[in-house]
Amino acid sequence: MFSGAQISLYPMSDDFVDVILKAIEALEPYRPFFRIETDDVSTLIVGPPDQLFPAMRDLFVSAARSGKHCVLSATVSRGCPGEPDDPICTPMTASGNDLPLVERIAEARNAVTRAETSGQIVAAQFSLYPLGEGHHMDEIYGCVDFLKSSGVFNRSKNFCTKLRGDAGPVFATLSEAFLRFGAPQGHVALDLTVSANSRTAA
Amino acid sequence: MFSGAQISLYPMSDDFVDVILKAIEALEPYRPFFRIETDDVSTLIVGPPDQLFPAMRDLFVSAARSGKHCVLSATVSRGCPGEPDDPICTPMTASGNDLPLVERIAEARNAVTRAETSGQIVAAQFSLYPLGEGHHMDEIYGCVDFLKSSGVFNRSKNFCTKLRGDAGPVFATLSEAFLRFGAPQGHVALDLTVSANSRTAA
Repeated sequence: MFSGAQISLYPMSDDFVDVILKAIEALEPYRPFFRIETDDVSTLIVGPPDQLFPAMRDLFVSAARSGKHCVLSATVSRGCPGEPDDPICTPMTASGNDLPLVERIAEARNAVTRAETSGQIVAAQFSLYPLGEGHHMDEIYGCVDFLKSSGVFNRSKNFCTKLRGDAGPVFATLSEAFLRFGAPQGHVALDLTVSANSRTAA
Repeated sequence: MFSGAQISLYPMSDDFVDVILKAIEALEPYRPFFRIETDDVSTLIVGPPDQLFPAMRDLFVSAARSGKHCVLSATVSRGCPGEPDDPICTPMTASGNDLPLVERIAEARNAVTRAETSGQIVAAQFSLYPLGEGHHMDEIYGCVDFLKSSGVFNRSKNFCTKLRGDAGPVFATLSEAFLRFGAPQGHVALDLTVSANSRTAA
């Protein structure tokens, strides 16, 4: 299954270029598994679906450690029918999302519990878009059940859901929502914003 | 129909707060028509679907005139079934998207031709998500036909389409894509990134 993300990093700082270049070093361990292409608006990463959120977590935590107000914005996708299947993208069967919904919710919660903490508090908001046929509202409601019991649920907002907590469990929660819900081979897109070091964080 | 956007503005500058506060003044003419709510991650605007992109254009052009590298990121939505219908959101019938596809493509092109220029060059990339039933691939292909002849088409990227040009026709093109394609009363979401004053613009 073709999976990847268009990601952008925004440090609200005069030295944003230095913050970005230093943060990108955190992607080094992922380079053997990803195709990476950059232009003036975003960086494309294409690779195994279960590695997308760990890579974004490490990139963002590295930038946030500058102490500057930083935001990561990403368009994440799996199973897009208009994209060629890429040999570096592994199948989704490893995520076990052919299991009954109640078991997937339990497994998603367990995965978040096992996530290592990073010491970096973040706010995240995202929208999950199950596209095409083969998706059911049961999947969405199951995902919402999982989010509310994830330990990092903040609140529901118009058009999106907001999380807050340590970057470790927050990115683990995002990854579980992306991987375990929606049709296993279906097209799922996720629109993500993560913020750290905001002066106005509530 | 309920319509609105979660929008964020990112000036890559130490004085990002001043740039944002000054840019927000550009929203004043829209305040009578919009409900506006802000938290630490984004600002919600809820209002008539045909005013969303003009409001974002004026906000962004105002920020970009600071000369700083600025990005606007937004999650735009119409017809979301999980949202209450809001009396300040007007029906979609005014957009004429019950017309045959070929006529809508022609009208969308004409609307972009009429767009006033702003003097501000921007790059924009976006993904359009027609959700639920009642959407057809014909609508997507029709939208792509329109984009390629909009005069601001830059290139197709993985997961998104990139535009480049004056903010006037670029935001007009985005608005036409959002309003005229997909089921008239269907749920359509649009994930948007607009960038100005990048040092690495190609």
